[in-house]
Amino acid sequence: MKHTISILVENEFGVLTRVAGLFSGRGFNIQSLTVAETLDPKISRMTIVTDGNEATLEQINKQLNKLVNVIKVTDVTTENPINRILTLIKVNINPKSKIEVIKTIELMGGEILDSDGKSVIVEFRGDEEKILSAINLLKPHGIMDFVQTGNIAIQKCRKVVD
Amino acid sequence: MKHTISILVENEFGVLTRVAGLFSGRGFNIQSLTVAETLDPKISRMTIVTDGNEATLEQINKQLNKLVNVIKVTDVTTENPINRILTLIKVNINPKSKIEVIKTIELMGGEILDSDGKSVIVEFRGDEEKILSAINLLKPHGIMDFVQTGNIAIQKCRKVVD
Repeated sequence: MKHTISILVENEFGVLTRVAGLFSGRGFNIQSLTVAETLDPKISRMTIVTDGNEATLEQINKQLNKLVNVIKVTDVTTENPINRILTLIKVNINPKSKIEVIKTIELMGGEILDSDGKSVIVEFRGDEEKILSAINLLKPHGIMDFVQTGNIAIQKCRKVVD
Repeated sequence: MKHTISILVENEFGVLTRVAGLFSGRGFNIQSLTVAETLDPKISRMTIVTDGNEATLEQINKQLNKLVNVIKVTDVTTENPINRILTLIKVNINPKSKIEVIKTIELMGGEILDSDGKSVIVEFRGDEEKILSAINLLKPHGIMDFVQTGNIAIQKCRKVVD
């Protein structure tokens, strides 16, 4: 099962190398990874999507907590999170395909950021399944460039029960 | 000056560790990093935002090209790219602040993904400056959670000159 692990780390040289080294050294899979500063520039958050059973996840959690500069490790998957990926896709258009491409982008909630009349650059955001649907719908038209972020996740607001 | 480096790598164990180790070992700064698969599952793209002068960037480029499993290194900054970060922010609301918060989100092109009546989770996407403006406008209301991707970049469509 896929798990999204959020790791708060001190912004020190080498912490990313140690975390990446832990995963590769022990054969833990990394499907995607994203690192960026938090609102406190001394602290960064790493979000890693990995694959594994409960025992593997427990190992990952235990080993990460032993690393220097690691502040907090959370398996966000267990918190019913909102997952988000941002994808930029450059897709071919021609006079015959243009309407279909544009209608597809609109229905998938995408936004056109640029065009030269022969191609469009589109931004999609959503969870993995939604992004995959957008790719599958646009692929037949010819995808010329494709860049995406790793997955990030945030815990939903707790529902107020009156 | 900030540079966005795009690195195509073979999806092999250890390549992320080698790239991260190169940066930390030589004292090159990493402001943000994001790794995800391309459309070819055997190849991943790493996007790294780093800081440095021309000589440093040349060194980074040269050293990266020497690494095993590195296919292609591009300094996207020189290509007049579109830059994008996705940010999820959980911000406090109360009966007095609600209208201001919602209006701010609307004007900054954000989207509300969840709310329990006491807080909202908002998604923003844009370049670093736009995201920073959104943070600065919402900060006085109380930011309770904050997660963001690393920056990704794509080259604009070439403009047709008739």
